[in-house]
Amino acid sequence: MKKTYLGVDLGGTYVKCGLVDARGRILRRDRFPVDSRRGPEATIADIVAHLEGIIEGLPLDEKPSGLALGAAGLIEVHRGILIKAPNLPGWNNVPLRDLFSARLDMPVRLENDANLHALGEWHSGAAKDWRHFILITLGTGVGGGLVLNSRLWNGTHMSVAEIGHMTVDPHGPVCACGNNGCLETYASATAMCRMARERYGHSGKTPDVFDSNRHDASDLFKLADQGDETAKQVFHQAGWALGLALANVFNLLGLEGAVIGGGASAAFEFMHPALIAEFSKRVMTVDPRSVHIRKTALDNDAPLAASAVLFK
Amino acid sequence: MKKTYLGVDLGGTYVKCGLVDARGRILRRDRFPVDSRRGPEATIADIVAHLEGIIEGLPLDEKPSGLALGAAGLIEVHRGILIKAPNLPGWNNVPLRDLFSARLDMPVRLENDANLHALGEWHSGAAKDWRHFILITLGTGVGGGLVLNSRLWNGTHMSVAEIGHMTVDPHGPVCACGNNGCLETYASATAMCRMARERYGHSGKTPDVFDSNRHDASDLFKLADQGDETAKQVFHQAGWALGLALANVFNLLGLEGAVIGGGASAAFEFMHPALIAEFSKRVMTVDPRSVHIRKTALDNDAPLAASAVLFK
Repeated sequence: MKKTYLGVDLGGTYVKCGLVDARGRILRRDRFPVDSRRGPEATIADIVAHLEGIIEGLPLDEKPSGLALGAAGLIEVHRGILIKAPNLPGWNNVPLRDLFSARLDMPVRLENDANLHALGEWHSGAAKDWRHFILITLGTGVGGGLVLNSRLWNGTHMSVAEIGHMTVDPHGPVCACGNNGCLETYASATAMCRMARERYGHSGKTPDVFDSNRHDASDLFKLADQGDETAKQVFHQAGWALGLALANVFNLLGLEGAVIGGGASAAFEFMHPALIAEFSKRVMTVDPRSVHIRKTALDNDAPLAASAVLFK
Repeated sequence: MKKTYLGVDLGGTYVKCGLVDARGRILRRDRFPVDSRRGPEATIADIVAHLEGIIEGLPLDEKPSGLALGAAGLIEVHRGILIKAPNLPGWNNVPLRDLFSARLDMPVRLENDANLHALGEWHSGAAKDWRHFILITLGTGVGGGLVLNSRLWNGTHMSVAEIGHMTVDPHGPVCACGNNGCLETYASATAMCRMARERYGHSGKTPDVFDSNRHDASDLFKLADQGDETAKQVFHQAGWALGLALANVFNLLGLEGAVIGGGASAAFEFMHPALIAEFSKRVMTVDPRSVHIRKTALDNDAPLAASAVLFK
C-alpha cells in the first residue's frame, strides 16, 4: 500500500492542487480556474468534483489519506475556519475544513498558505537542514510562515507569522490593512510595481511596459536584468525593508535562517545586497555571517510537499 | 529535606541575590554593592563570599541545589558565557557559569536577566495563567523575555527576545546600539528622561527636578501624577512605541499576553492608553480585546522566583 495525500492551494481565481506520496514527492499536479465570487458552497463543489476526478483514477491502495488545504488569509487553525482572506472577498468565518471533509470522507487540515509553504520548504526544500526559520512570500501581499523546533508555529489559535504587517516605517505608505508602512507596502509584488511607477513618473522616462496597466513584478525583474537603474532601486528598497523586518524577527527569536518565496522572489538576487546590509546593521543576537537567507527551492510545489508532513 | 536555590542578579554596581524554596517563595533576599570595573575575577570572588555567607547559616538539609545567575546582556546560554553586557564594560566572552560553579560546587545556570524575569512572572507572577507571552523590562535599556509553550525561548544558542532593538521608526533617535529608532530610544527610562528634557527645553518651562542632572524616570512619574502635561506626553510616546512593537510581536507569534516590568513600569497607567490604541490599530492575528497587557506582579523578585523553575 502506498500512502498518498491531497494538497489544495485555494486562490481567488485559480486553485492549485496535487497528489503527493508520504515523502512529499509530487505524483500529480493540476491548476484550474474557479470563480470564488459565487461563494464558498459553489466553489467548494467545483473543487471537490475536481479532486474526485483525481481520486477515481487511482488504484484502491493509493487512495489519499488526507487533504491539506491552504488559503491566503487569517485562519482559526484548530477549528479549521477561514476568518477572512484578502483574495476571497465575502468569505468570512467559513468552516472550510468541515465543508471539505463532509464531502470527501477524509481528514482535512486547513492552514494559511504561507504556513504550508514553510512546512514544505522544511520537509524537502530550502530549509530542510533547519529547526527554526521563517519563510516570507512576496506576492500580491507579503505572507509568512514560522517553523520553531521543526514544527509550524500557530500561536494561541489563529494562523500567525504575519510579517507582512510588521511595521517598517510608521510614516510609510498606506497598506491595504489601513496602517502605514507595513513590510507589505515595500516588499509585495504590488508595492514594487507601485514604487516603480512612482519613480518612473518622477524621472519622466517610463518604459513601455510600465505605461500599460498590465505590468507586473516580472516586467520589473526583466528591466533590472537589462540594467535598468530604476528597477534596481525598487528592488534595493524592497531588500532594505526585508532586511529591517528580518533583523526584528531574528533579534526576537534567534532563528537559523530565512527563506524568501513567492512570485517576486524571482528578483532575489537584486534584493539580496540591500537586505543583507540592513539585516547585518540591525541584528545583534546572531552573527549575521552565520545566518542563511535563501531563495525558495520548491516554489509553488512547497504547499503540496507540506501535505505529507501535516498528516504524519 | 527542603530544596532551596540561590538567585543572583548581576548588575554593574549592585548585585541582588536571594534564596528561594522549590515553589519559588523567597526565604532571604539581599543587595550589596560591587565594583565591576575591577573585572570578572575580583567581582565574582566578592559575590561568592557573600553567597557563602548565606549558605553557611543554613541547616545542612536546606543547602541550595543550584544557582540561577542573571545578567543584562547577550548570553550564550548552553555554554554559560556572557558575550557582552552594556552595564559591565570590558566583560566580554566571560565564562560566568563555569567561574561560579568552580567556586560554589553546585550547578549554575546563566540567563539573560529579562529572560529570568519572564520565567519568574510565569511561575508565580502576572503570567502564571499563560503558556505564550512576552515580558518587556523598561529600565536603563529595554529588555525582553519570551515564553513559548511554557518554556523560555532561547533561539539557536544566544539569549534572544531583544525587543528593545526592534525598529519602531527607521528615522527615529539614535540608539546606544548605533541604529536609529529602536524601541529602546522611546521606551527605556533613559529615553523617557531624554524626551522630557527635550520637551521641557522647547517649552522653556523645565521643572526644578529636571534642571539638575540627577533626575530619573521616577521624577517624571511624579510629575505626570501631579498633572504635568509634558510628562504625560512622554509616557504617551513611550506607550505608542510599545504598542507598535507589541503588535509586530503578536502578528508574528500570536501570544496570550504581555507583561511590562522594570523601573519605568511604575508609569504603566500613563503609557497604557496609547499602548492599547496603537496595538489595537496594528494587530490582526488576535482580537486585541482578548489580549492582556499587564504590569509586572513580582518586580525585582521575579528573577529570584525563576531560579526554582530553572532547576526543575
